Amino acid sequence: MEADGKQAPLLTDAAGLINDVDTFLFDVDGVIWRGGKVIEGVAETLDMLRDMGKKLLFVTNNSTRSRKMFQEKFRSLGLAISEEEVFSSSFAAAGYLQSIGFPADKKVYVVGEEGIQQELEQAGIQYLGGPEDGEKKVEMGSGKNLEIDPNVGAVVVGFDHHINYYKMTYATLCIRTNPGCIFIATNCDSVAHFTDKQEWPAGGTMVGSIRVSSETEPIVVGKPSTFMMDYLANKFKISKSKMCMVGDRLDTDILFGQAGGCKTLLVLSGVTDLKSLHSPKNTIHPDFYTNELPDLLAAKRGAAA
Amino acid sequence: MEADGKQAPLLTDAAGLINDVDTFLFDVDGVIWRGGKVIEGVAETLDMLRDMGKKLLFVTNNSTRSRKMFQEKFRSLGLAISEEEVFSSSFAAAGYLQSIGFPADKKVYVVGEEGIQQELEQAGIQYLGGPEDGEKKVEMGSGKNLEIDPNVGAVVVGFDHHINYYKMTYATLCIRTNPGCIFIATNCDSVAHFTDKQEWPAGGTMVGSIRVSSETEPIVVGKPSTFMMDYLANKFKISKSKMCMVGDRLDTDILFGQAGGCKTLLVLSGVTDLKSLHSPKNTIHPDFYTNELPDLLAAKRGAAA
Repeated sequence: MEADGKQAPLLTDAAGLINDVDTFLFDVDGVIWRGGKVIEGVAETLDMLRDMGKKLLFVTNNSTRSRKMFQEKFRSLGLAISEEEVFSSSFAAAGYLQSIGFPADKKVYVVGEEGIQQELEQAGIQYLGGPEDGEKKVEMGSGKNLEIDPNVGAVVVGFDHHINYYKMTYATLCIRTNPGCIFIATNCDSVAHFTDKQEWPAGGTMVGSIRVSSETEPIVVGKPSTFMMDYLANKFKISKSKMCMVGDRLDTDILFGQAGGCKTLLVLSGVTDLKSLHSPKNTIHPDFYTNELPDLLAAKRGAAA
Repeated sequence: MEADGKQAPLLTDAAGLINDVDTFLFDVDGVIWRGGKVIEGVAETLDMLRDMGKKLLFVTNNSTRSRKMFQEKFRSLGLAISEEEVFSSSFAAAGYLQSIGFPADKKVYVVGEEGIQQELEQAGIQYLGGPEDGEKKVEMGSGKNLEIDPNVGAVVVGFDHHINYYKMTYATLCIRTNPGCIFIATNCDSVAHFTDKQEWPAGGTMVGSIRVSSETEPIVVGKPSTFMMDYLANKFKISKSKMCMVGDRLDTDILFGQAGGCKTLLVLSGVTDLKSLHSPKNTIHPDFYTNELPDLLAAKRGAAA
């Protein structure tokens, strides 16, 4: 759609799109649920796609939960999925460290929440920081010194609603002074709907601060980086051209799908409205857009007619 | 020095430089004092320059102190200066707001420390936030709402060692949702010597986070922005070509001097060493460099000889 400057078309042939796709990747917030409630018709849509033999994967930049915690959240909302169907940026951070053979004797310093720690734990990677450092302070003043663990070989930064100067300083010193220490960002989202009423600072806020103080560009593992896409394509041996990314954000979800060579479907049930999609300032054009995920049920109605 | 790619020369004719200059602008940390102690010979150097009729101004990106607090710090170290000789980025923030005619019924939300608040107070500008919000929390969860004052017309962000998610969220909501609200950064320094032992995250760290979450570029009033230089040149009616900026940092002090059209003198008594000055990667070349400020005393010895 970019080449000729035309705008993304409304999805009119749901059956055709489903037919062309083996695997659907779904963003979660604004696609599956909104303001803590499942969007009406989503359960039926997922059932239909499974019945048609499609593989379903849920890909979220939210790093505060682990895959297991996400599975429980889905279950609490009446949606049955398996842990293996969820790909969170917390999992991606652990997956990235495994993919580069992160040494067993090295540790990760975490600026973030429980989800990252659970995924590191499951991957057998040692860590410190996180919620435990939430109340720590740096003593200011001449002659003070903050001792850091010389075995920290990576700093993982994600959303952290207990961010403080201690964590910023510890993370910065690790990146700047521990030889070879890498800086991983779960995602760079500016804001997110932690509440349905307002947009609050998201993971990119914590990343933005440490990017400045460390003078280092992070390795981003969440959307729109293609790390997760490559990981999934590789793990499940799926051709990316037979994948469709469904999301509510142009700058993460749709860009992620396009960067990976997938089909892309924007839903208007989250942060992007029709006005911003069609704004002349918008340069990201999905293959199709539709109001909400249950619009795919038209394929079933078409088949039944 | 940039044009021909030549490296900055060592200052050999102190008397000649002093003769060409009416006003000396000094950075403070790493130039006047280091690790909480005045560099030996600095008091004598300042006395000599005053005796020769030179105007002296102290220009610092440190926003945690007001001019009055800096004056007290100088006094505690045995250096007598007047409040009017100090230009801190806390003062620059208040000065900028005055220069644009910030409305009397509007308020400033402060992410920073006491210095900014004292300067706003002295400028008669209403403010909220700052140290008072150091222990506040944002309640997470669906349906939550953080109410912000609709009269906040500017957010000033500087170094804040009590930075937290509450301040980040409050500041972000003001910038994103209060019509016309501006975003002012006292400085963008990545790290600073709050201790002589390590480099810790500085004001740019807090600015970097809110730059991401607000999706807004700040107006920077500290070095290397020329706001303070223009302010000083205007206030004291000094030609910039008769000013010399003396500092220990290439990316703030020397860039600041060059951007303002001043002469520039790098001292090696702070963060920049000879190796980084002469590194092929360095693109910022001062007019001269010398080991430390008291090297200017050579002018006196020369005159006496």
